[in-house]
Amino acid sequence: MAAPETIAQDGGTWTFPASQPLVLDSGARIEGLELAWRSYGTLNADKTNAVLVCHALTLDQYVAGEHPTTGKPGWWTRMIGPGKPIDPAKHFIVCANVVGGCMGSTGPASINPATGKAWGLAFPVITIRDMVRAQAMLVDALGVDTLLAVVGGSMGGMQVLQWAASYPERLFSAVVVASAARHSAQNIAFHEVGRQAVMGDPDWRGGDYALHGARPEKGLAVARMAAHITYLSEAALQRKFGRELQRDGLSWGFDADFQVESYLRYQGASFVDRFDANSYLYITRAMDYFDLAAEHGGVLAEAFRKARDVRFCVMSFTSDWLYPTSESRHIVRALNAAGARASFVEIESDKGHDAFLLDEPVMEAALAGFLDGVERARGLK
Amino acid sequence: MAAPETIAQDGGTWTFPASQPLVLDSGARIEGLELAWRSYGTLNADKTNAVLVCHALTLDQYVAGEHPTTGKPGWWTRMIGPGKPIDPAKHFIVCANVVGGCMGSTGPASINPATGKAWGLAFPVITIRDMVRAQAMLVDALGVDTLLAVVGGSMGGMQVLQWAASYPERLFSAVVVASAARHSAQNIAFHEVGRQAVMGDPDWRGGDYALHGARPEKGLAVARMAAHITYLSEAALQRKFGRELQRDGLSWGFDADFQVESYLRYQGASFVDRFDANSYLYITRAMDYFDLAAEHGGVLAEAFRKARDVRFCVMSFTSDWLYPTSESRHIVRALNAAGARASFVEIESDKGHDAFLLDEPVMEAALAGFLDGVERARGLK
Repeated sequence: MAAPETIAQDGGTWTFPASQPLVLDSGARIEGLELAWRSYGTLNADKTNAVLVCHALTLDQYVAGEHPTTGKPGWWTRMIGPGKPIDPAKHFIVCANVVGGCMGSTGPASINPATGKAWGLAFPVITIRDMVRAQAMLVDALGVDTLLAVVGGSMGGMQVLQWAASYPERLFSAVVVASAARHSAQNIAFHEVGRQAVMGDPDWRGGDYALHGARPEKGLAVARMAAHITYLSEAALQRKFGRELQRDGLSWGFDADFQVESYLRYQGASFVDRFDANSYLYITRAMDYFDLAAEHGGVLAEAFRKARDVRFCVMSFTSDWLYPTSESRHIVRALNAAGARASFVEIESDKGHDAFLLDEPVMEAALAGFLDGVERARGLK
Repeated sequence: MAAPETIAQDGGTWTFPASQPLVLDSGARIEGLELAWRSYGTLNADKTNAVLVCHALTLDQYVAGEHPTTGKPGWWTRMIGPGKPIDPAKHFIVCANVVGGCMGSTGPASINPATGKAWGLAFPVITIRDMVRAQAMLVDALGVDTLLAVVGGSMGGMQVLQWAASYPERLFSAVVVASAARHSAQNIAFHEVGRQAVMGDPDWRGGDYALHGARPEKGLAVARMAAHITYLSEAALQRKFGRELQRDGLSWGFDADFQVESYLRYQGASFVDRFDANSYLYITRAMDYFDLAAEHGGVLAEAFRKARDVRFCVMSFTSDWLYPTSESRHIVRALNAAGARASFVEIESDKGHDAFLLDEPVMEAALAGFLDGVERARGLK
């Protein structure tokens, strides 16, 4: 284990020592893996106040404060920041870009040491468990044995569930928001549409676009547009856009007549500026492969058998049709069956899956209340 | 009006006489429009047994029997055929490929007489009302004043609603299945993803692919894949495919690992063999433009003000999230407000939007019962 002294306490890029390759579920291994991470707050003397945050598909390590490249607020400032449920004044908050990502961690756009060129499709397929395994090694390097909490929404919630299954002794509590213990057929289907859009773009070049100075921008934009619809509820789209036009009258052509068209085109176009197309393939694949019960003989409760002492908080949103409440209930039933401590909140919201990133006072209050109890139990209060 | 003698009674292609250009909502006009149509059964002496069937986005005039090019059964053999609610033994059943389509009617793949080349994007944008206007002219040519029923599902249902608004005196009854009186923001959003997939394919060539011997197959396949997900419920996808694999074990790559991926790829690939990409753009646009209330001062009931004597039957499916029951209820409320006769059935089904094309005995029974009453009222029984 790397000594805590060798790693900065506020973030940066941590290169795994030569003695610690990342061994993947596929059997492949990555030598010298780099994890880009960020922390907020200070680890206490007892090392009992560390909170690991796990990010969603296209997000990154910048959970709070200002994002260094976009200048926008971090993606979870509703939940993390001064006076928020997760507060740098009392917590040591860590978030790392996932393996396979494109915000500084090793991924398909990184240089393959064997060739000196971008990995492209030579990069090994990764899983949610691989992401979590790498995070656990980073947490080791930070000198933290037990995390006060592991917290995440959407794909981040999958990582939280995997933490509970893989390292139950290393977490005191776990918060799973708007997530699922496995990808459904519809989830896989939407991801496959996105991948086919990317891979069908001639500029994808079999994954080697970087070698050709090209980028499959149109395909990736279409992938993002399709995915974006799944992040919003029908009601939210209707409330925000309805059938409002961009201009007076129809164009009688194929320009963006409706505001919702213009909005989606913008979502697609801005996404390609900040995200790598191959990372999109790899991370969606990791999510599609995720099926926590399958790792445990098809019985989800078995995944949590050793996590009986972990305090769980599961949250879902009524209008989330991507990871609907039924998926959260499925998790909660398994936790109950395993004898784990689980609290569950279904939050009334018309904002769809994206609610977990938006202003949802009940979510904030529920997390604050849950963490308050966790801190008391941990002797921090 | 063309004399009935000049037009075959079992279908073919009808060319609008020079005196009857199709004047479009956009202000454009199409001279010498061709409508490919098919009929089943015989028009009775009183000309009171004609049933017009309106087809959905990617379907065609072959509602029953065997499809001449695919060899598969017509798309509505559940509802139309010997012993079925709509029966050639007693009804004269007519269905025409919509204007803008690609199964024989004039559309963007047809030859533009002004240039001698395929229309491409020079084809005028068409609306649901334009489709219905052309159908009314065909019905005229067939010598039918009043249709016993106009029947359609999905986009076909939109045409039925438009018939009731535009030609209330020409229909005795109207059957609207799994449809809506306007496209929602989410409906438009999914269509826009499909259009961007087509138009982003370099083989689309600004719509002039036919001139270059190319076809935007990859873009159109992605469009179809995205649309296809919206035709099925999450439950249906889970029941049919779940997380079943194609082979033993995962590929650890980007092949189709899951059966649902393979199924979607097949849906995309087979669609491009039978459908024209520009027709897809034009017909989705017509659907997005559809907003029957907007044509009537924003009050849907006004659209049905003159349709008080038409007998309406509206059907929806519980798991249809593309045109959910709430949209059908909205139609029924407007019909009630207009003082029209409306019956409404919400059918319990987990098959999603596509239920209207599948084995749904309640739908079949409801249509049979409704038409039985209609025939009695019309003096046919």
